[in-house]
Amino acid sequence: MRPLDPSDVRRHNLSLLLGEVALRGPRSRATLALETGLNKSTVSSLVAELSELGLVRESGEEERPGAVGRPAQNVELDPDGPFVLGLEINVDYLAVWAADLAGTVRHRAFVESDNRQQPERVISWLELLARDALEQPFAAGRRPVAATLAVPGIVNDDGVLVVAPNLHWEDVPLSHMLSDGIGPVIVENEANLGALAELTEGAASGLSDFVYISGEIGIGAGIVIGGDLFRGASGFGGEIGHLTIDAYGPPCACGSRGCLERLAGQDALLRLAGWDARVQRPGARPEWPGAMLAESALEGHAKTLEALSQVGHTLGIAAAAAVNLLNPQALLLGGYFAPLTEWLREPIEAELHNRLLAGDGSGCRVLAARLGGEAAVRGAVALSRRQALEDPVALDRASPPAGVPA
Amino acid sequence: MRPLDPSDVRRHNLSLLLGEVALRGPRSRATLALETGLNKSTVSSLVAELSELGLVRESGEEERPGAVGRPAQNVELDPDGPFVLGLEINVDYLAVWAADLAGTVRHRAFVESDNRQQPERVISWLELLARDALEQPFAAGRRPVAATLAVPGIVNDDGVLVVAPNLHWEDVPLSHMLSDGIGPVIVENEANLGALAELTEGAASGLSDFVYISGEIGIGAGIVIGGDLFRGASGFGGEIGHLTIDAYGPPCACGSRGCLERLAGQDALLRLAGWDARVQRPGARPEWPGAMLAESALEGHAKTLEALSQVGHTLGIAAAAAVNLLNPQALLLGGYFAPLTEWLREPIEAELHNRLLAGDGSGCRVLAARLGGEAAVRGAVALSRRQALEDPVALDRASPPAGVPA
Repeated sequence: MRPLDPSDVRRHNLSLLLGEVALRGPRSRATLALETGLNKSTVSSLVAELSELGLVRESGEEERPGAVGRPAQNVELDPDGPFVLGLEINVDYLAVWAADLAGTVRHRAFVESDNRQQPERVISWLELLARDALEQPFAAGRRPVAATLAVPGIVNDDGVLVVAPNLHWEDVPLSHMLSDGIGPVIVENEANLGALAELTEGAASGLSDFVYISGEIGIGAGIVIGGDLFRGASGFGGEIGHLTIDAYGPPCACGSRGCLERLAGQDALLRLAGWDARVQRPGARPEWPGAMLAESALEGHAKTLEALSQVGHTLGIAAAAAVNLLNPQALLLGGYFAPLTEWLREPIEAELHNRLLAGDGSGCRVLAARLGGEAAVRGAVALSRRQALEDPVALDRASPPAGVPA
Repeated sequence: MRPLDPSDVRRHNLSLLLGEVALRGPRSRATLALETGLNKSTVSSLVAELSELGLVRESGEEERPGAVGRPAQNVELDPDGPFVLGLEINVDYLAVWAADLAGTVRHRAFVESDNRQQPERVISWLELLARDALEQPFAAGRRPVAATLAVPGIVNDDGVLVVAPNLHWEDVPLSHMLSDGIGPVIVENEANLGALAELTEGAASGLSDFVYISGEIGIGAGIVIGGDLFRGASGFGGEIGHLTIDAYGPPCACGSRGCLERLAGQDALLRLAGWDARVQRPGARPEWPGAMLAESALEGHAKTLEALSQVGHTLGIAAAAAVNLLNPQALLLGGYFAPLTEWLREPIEAELHNRLLAGDGSGCRVLAARLGGEAAVRGAVALSRRQALEDPVALDRASPPAGVPA
């Protein structure tokens, strides 16, 4: 616990007001006062400071049907204000998005790329894409005020990618390697960011506590607790793919046996459904097994339906462990599980019913994620925005021209 | 996010100062200024307010070997200041403790009692014990400023005991039933409170993220995240005892199959070690199997050692699930597991080594809990103190004479 002083109050309330305008759109000072509980003169003084910082500006008049008197001027985000980046390195593509503080995407690059290469090469490609973004008119030669990179592996608190099994990368200091070209970069696991994206603009909107289970090549999870991403003591939380389902089951690539990922991951699901897991179209997005199996299930193929039932029960056992420990409001099925939710929900719910101590009283729902293959990069944008909105005063110092080291 | 105003700053800093004095002992205003980062005149003004509230007083002089000049007066907790209660209903005993805000226990009642009765009867006994506490000189006819009750079951956010399998109680509105006699009572699961006690004054002192696994008649867990008790969205978190170890294993009392509790709980452990689980001395404390089995293991009985190894491996599989999801700094073994840690640690660590995606890199240690059968009631005192120290201004209104409804 640290002491507070009056400047903390001002910073907190600046962040509160900027967040209102960024997340809920243009509104008058009077509306801001009503919504935040701050008095009108405080709101006016804070808006003046945000305006001096180049973050907000006067815009059109507030629409108030039937209201009399002089119409109130709205306050909105300055479209030439700071911007943030969301980046992604996945197994077979790179992505670079830029957005303003309201979350409006100003630039979007998505490039197929086989990234099972030396990290240095892949990073130089990503930097080229980022440089291209920073040369667009909206950036006007400035750096982003925050940048987040999504990666398919576990990341420690220093921004080091500890291991990404499907990239065959180990101990890559990504945050450090990227900071020269882009500025400080937060590095975060793709499932964690997928969870944050679903919270911000997807199926978890309005929830505060949920577990996002993502079927990619492996099975990952992102855990949201109290509206915040949960990372664990050193950033290794959320590894649901390696929960033991069968202690003496088949060996998993991680060195253990009978892991969820081994029994219900992409290879297992395709094999159970009678497909060869190696039949993958080059350049196909990670969600392809979902679309294909959903089509087959809709056509009523018995082997597909049986495979989905079996995988659903296996997922349900792992889900029950997570729900017994974490008591979330919902489980979100993401990645290639999302389009299969219709068939997976019933066996998962049956296992929850049988295996939860709180039984149906836990009230945990099973929902399909909504953002598909864009979830991780959208989450990277969302995390960058959260960081930027937290301390508006710091934004003033964080956005130097791109040529100058930050 | 709510707006802050200058009175929030004052409340926050009052809480900060009171916490320093309560948790670290008597100290001068100058020392408080150094430790908190507040300036001296602010400290003096805050101390004056705490003194007016009857929370602190001037005491002796600060010891500063070799210092010159007039010695500084210390500020200490007022021994006639507010007090808190920690209560416990367990299967075979009741406990009522009272402590001051520094955590010094001023009254301690522990009574053997078979509580597998109508809840109303047990509650009337507990109220008698509480009334006796409130008649002691330290209470001087006042009510506690905070009270917490530990129970062996799951509790929802309204203070209703949803289910306590070993008491055969269901849907008992404990908080409501106790509030007339004692004032507002927080009701909390015993393993959660055990975790908080170990954090406050036991083996987890200095940690911020850990899982406390407690062997009682069942197996419960308390999860601490970022220094706070984690309860889940509706208070049902931490049910590690019902993680599935063997999906097709023997049926558990909870309705599921192959739960940790069924395979590694008290009955299973005693049976594996060749004892009849029903051989329990009447009135024996819940930790008795630990003491007995530790004695037998020290004597080198092969069957005991095999049972501990098997139960350790089973615990390790569940522990690995918790560590893969939560990435804690440590696992604490409490209840009757604590005295058996010497034999359980190796098989648990072997399972963690094999089953964690982060492997030994997770850095999770396996520690013995230190507070034995008093952990839950000590945790109840600790939670009451935390609540009281959070808002010193509220304490002024919270401590009316016991005869007057709060």
